[in-house]
Amino acid sequence: MRRVAIIGVGQTKFGNLGEITTRELFLEASLNALKDAGLTTDDIDAIYFGNLDSSRFEHQCHTAAINASVLTNRSIPATRIENACASGGTALIQGYMSIAAGMFDTVLVVGAEKMTNVTTPEAIDVLATCADDITEVPHGITFPGLYALMARAHMAQFGTTEEQLALVAVKNHKNALDNPYAQFHKEITLEKALSSIMVADPLKLYDCSPISDGGAAVILMALDKTEQLDNVTPVEIVGVGQASDTIDLANRMSLTSIYATKLAAKRAYQMANIAANKIDIAEVHDCFTIAEIINTEDLGFFEPGKGAKAVEEGLTQRDGDIPINTSGGLKAKGHPIGATGVAQIIEITHQIRGTAGKRQVNGVNYGLAQNMGGSGATATVTILKGV
Amino acid sequence: MRRVAIIGVGQTKFGNLGEITTRELFLEASLNALKDAGLTTDDIDAIYFGNLDSSRFEHQCHTAAINASVLTNRSIPATRIENACASGGTALIQGYMSIAAGMFDTVLVVGAEKMTNVTTPEAIDVLATCADDITEVPHGITFPGLYALMARAHMAQFGTTEEQLALVAVKNHKNALDNPYAQFHKEITLEKALSSIMVADPLKLYDCSPISDGGAAVILMALDKTEQLDNVTPVEIVGVGQASDTIDLANRMSLTSIYATKLAAKRAYQMANIAANKIDIAEVHDCFTIAEIINTEDLGFFEPGKGAKAVEEGLTQRDGDIPINTSGGLKAKGHPIGATGVAQIIEITHQIRGTAGKRQVNGVNYGLAQNMGGSGATATVTILKGV
Repeated sequence: MRRVAIIGVGQTKFGNLGEITTRELFLEASLNALKDAGLTTDDIDAIYFGNLDSSRFEHQCHTAAINASVLTNRSIPATRIENACASGGTALIQGYMSIAAGMFDTVLVVGAEKMTNVTTPEAIDVLATCADDITEVPHGITFPGLYALMARAHMAQFGTTEEQLALVAVKNHKNALDNPYAQFHKEITLEKALSSIMVADPLKLYDCSPISDGGAAVILMALDKTEQLDNVTPVEIVGVGQASDTIDLANRMSLTSIYATKLAAKRAYQMANIAANKIDIAEVHDCFTIAEIINTEDLGFFEPGKGAKAVEEGLTQRDGDIPINTSGGLKAKGHPIGATGVAQIIEITHQIRGTAGKRQVNGVNYGLAQNMGGSGATATVTILKGV
Repeated sequence: MRRVAIIGVGQTKFGNLGEITTRELFLEASLNALKDAGLTTDDIDAIYFGNLDSSRFEHQCHTAAINASVLTNRSIPATRIENACASGGTALIQGYMSIAAGMFDTVLVVGAEKMTNVTTPEAIDVLATCADDITEVPHGITFPGLYALMARAHMAQFGTTEEQLALVAVKNHKNALDNPYAQFHKEITLEKALSSIMVADPLKLYDCSPISDGGAAVILMALDKTEQLDNVTPVEIVGVGQASDTIDLANRMSLTSIYATKLAAKRAYQMANIAANKIDIAEVHDCFTIAEIINTEDLGFFEPGKGAKAVEEGLTQRDGDIPINTSGGLKAKGHPIGATGVAQIIEITHQIRGTAGKRQVNGVNYGLAQNMGGSGATATVTILKGV
């Protein structure tokens, strides 16, 4: 397989962006990434676009073709990928494979979602389509409820506390203060998080990621082609892994571990030929605070049941042993579904290049991004490394 | 790039299938393809799934993961692709690239759509999301109207007649008589087609493909791995091409040519290193009769403006120079959106293997499948050849 590198990254602000369409989010993020790479639209061979459901948010399918023609009149191949909240991470892997295969040299991978032009109940109903509509949704459960079940199980099995969950939110809100693109620039205290309204016991408002608009873009290039570029610091994709699991929680082997994350990580580590302890920094899918804790265990950063304690001990803070979600995570950076997995790649790229500004962590060699769909029926893991 | 072959094909019946879900359509088609290849679910490394909009048809996103767990408990990577009515053809290309890259050895590519559990107006509204929701849909135009504009332009520019359009339907209905999986087994006369109710002048009921349920599956394998198989006749994928165009018709250079088809074909012919006149048989995206005529011109089978005359002269019949849509096409075989592009590959595979039964055309060496999204904003072309 040909080696593949990230040569440009760009995104929009995340948040409630008012009157803006998905195609505009796509364009803004893409132009920022092109500028970062010093390229023009003429240099792009193909587009992969991660998007959950513009069909219901905007009455618009066929979005990949729209985006392609918004960007260029060169009629390049454009493909939409939907794997629930892992749409962005999956699009990245498709882009990677298309270059690895030798089909294309330079590929634009974008994720975008415009969620705030429907009512909140309608947005929640769209999100519910990522759970099982036969075995779960008819019972009235939505994602806060599903993750609450995982949280309760983790608490019962390992003694994880509501305080430890809340500390994930406190950390991620603090990290987001230094991310100009984040939805929230609002430091919160443990007390504030713990006293926020209950959404699905034990998960409170601050345990949940928000509804967001936003777009994120990265440009991939065959590594052997990057030598021709000026002023670009390529970051190599050294491992990718993807896995699936039953979409319904009831059929899983465990409520306290997300098997798809474990398996996607195993595949990515094998490809990169490294162990988990080589990873210096990670962006982890924290749609709910409990998800960050479980995922850090399944990624091999902590033993099963030790993830919550690690948060309490500060190991996942920006100056900790393994900084998690320096971008602010889904929790505070925002979670425009299709964009999320791509935005994770942007943060890791910045950290490896040394362009993360105030969020910069020293000495990042290997970085990892883990993106997840639904309650964990899809997971993607991507490992990046400086060239 | 590694060479890739099709080693198994299978599908469900197309039509109004009543109480059946997309995951069941997926499973039935997949098991038929596995049986055809002499493989089990344990042999599959990854799944690509083409689907337009289960979100609105079934209140279900995240369908790729559901399908993976319905098929196997091995947690294999599964990815949904949506490119409007070209979702199936695009999924096939993604599966191809994943093997060509060396990521996987054996990949299941499936398309499925369950359309008949919503009302016809609602299905039409879902399909309308494949047109431009900013510049087209607000004017009240849906796909029959868009293709009617193309038909009128073709008639004005080249003298194409309503009779010639109707002859496409007559041919495809006749072909479908010999396809046990086709939605319609009903021979029609030219008079019947011409006297059917007007949908969008000049397109009448028999100029339009139907609303359908159905699933279609093909199994791809690295060609060098196929030697280990018994009783399998591999059919090689020797060329793939994909292209995009403006989603709205008003911005196109021409109403009488679909540029994305032209460009996708050019790319596929280049990869296969052949010219159009080498193709022995083709499945062409005949969502409307005019689409088959325009596409056969853009694929290079006939000169611009000569496609309608070719139908009249019988050149596209089963015993003609270049048989088009021996399966019955979208018109008579049915058009379950996500399944369509995959079902085209099934027909070409049968024709090359010599397993097309009563539909068999003699001496098929090269076959081509052309799948299209919307009014032509996405097109994929795949060229197959016997090994």
